[in-house]
Amino acid sequence: MPLADLLKYDDKGYVPAIIYDATTSQPLVLCFMNADAVAKTAETGFVHVFRRSRGRLMLKGETSGHTQKVVDIFVNCDGNSLAIAVEQKVAACAHGYYSCYYRRYNPETGELDVVAERIFDPAEVYKKTS
Amino acid sequence: MPLADLLKYDDKGYVPAIIYDATTSQPLVLCFMNADAVAKTAETGFVHVFRRSRGRLMLKGETSGHTQKVVDIFVNCDGNSLAIAVEQKVAACAHGYYSCYYRRYNPETGELDVVAERIFDPAEVYKKTS
Repeated sequence: MPLADLLKYDDKGYVPAIIYDATTSQPLVLCFMNADAVAKTAETGFVHVFRRSRGRLMLKGETSGHTQKVVDIFVNCDGNSLAIAVEQKVAACAHGYYSCYYRRYNPETGELDVVAERIFDPAEVYKKTS
Repeated sequence: MPLADLLKYDDKGYVPAIIYDATTSQPLVLCFMNADAVAKTAETGFVHVFRRSRGRLMLKGETSGHTQKVVDIFVNCDGNSLAIAVEQKVAACAHGYYSCYYRRYNPETGELDVVAERIFDPAEVYKKTS
């Protein structure tokens, strides 16, 4: 059965997907996927997301070239979320970090400390093209 | 500032939280936390969730004893999700597996293959107490 047909979607038609590094298992980003995004991800072997702001299905990394090649897809016990192991090209986060989870909560100070190096400059990568 | 005040919650008042193994980084479970659950998790150092079915905040592992001790809490770039590294006691999944993501999608057969060992017997752990 196609993967998209095996899942239970929320009342808006999405399942959350943990995208993580296939080598280190580091969590990279959490995506919400509709059935089309799940189907396209499974078919093409590259993570796709439905961008509500653009109203269409997009290859993750379409603009930046920072794509995520699927290695394995796991379904949780309840069939309502995914964990997708990927080979990440360059970086997952549009802010220039390898993972979107680059800030650690510091309970002593109550602040979010940046604990990763910036890999690229978003201003360079996301240049306006028009 | 308390962690719960740093986050952007969805229209139902939740943030998704990736719970993962602090040692191996393996994803274990995805929880939806309201502000109270976030606050209690940060304060106590143990993952708490709001169980809608019971209408109350619960320590994860309250019934089974399979608690999750918080090691680090990371906030994503948009401030609307968490990644929490934990020391998992016994297993995260109520079905008896260490991780809820114990089934891998097999694109050849279209089936979900169980790829992990069952660690405990749910029938024993979740005995009816009344």
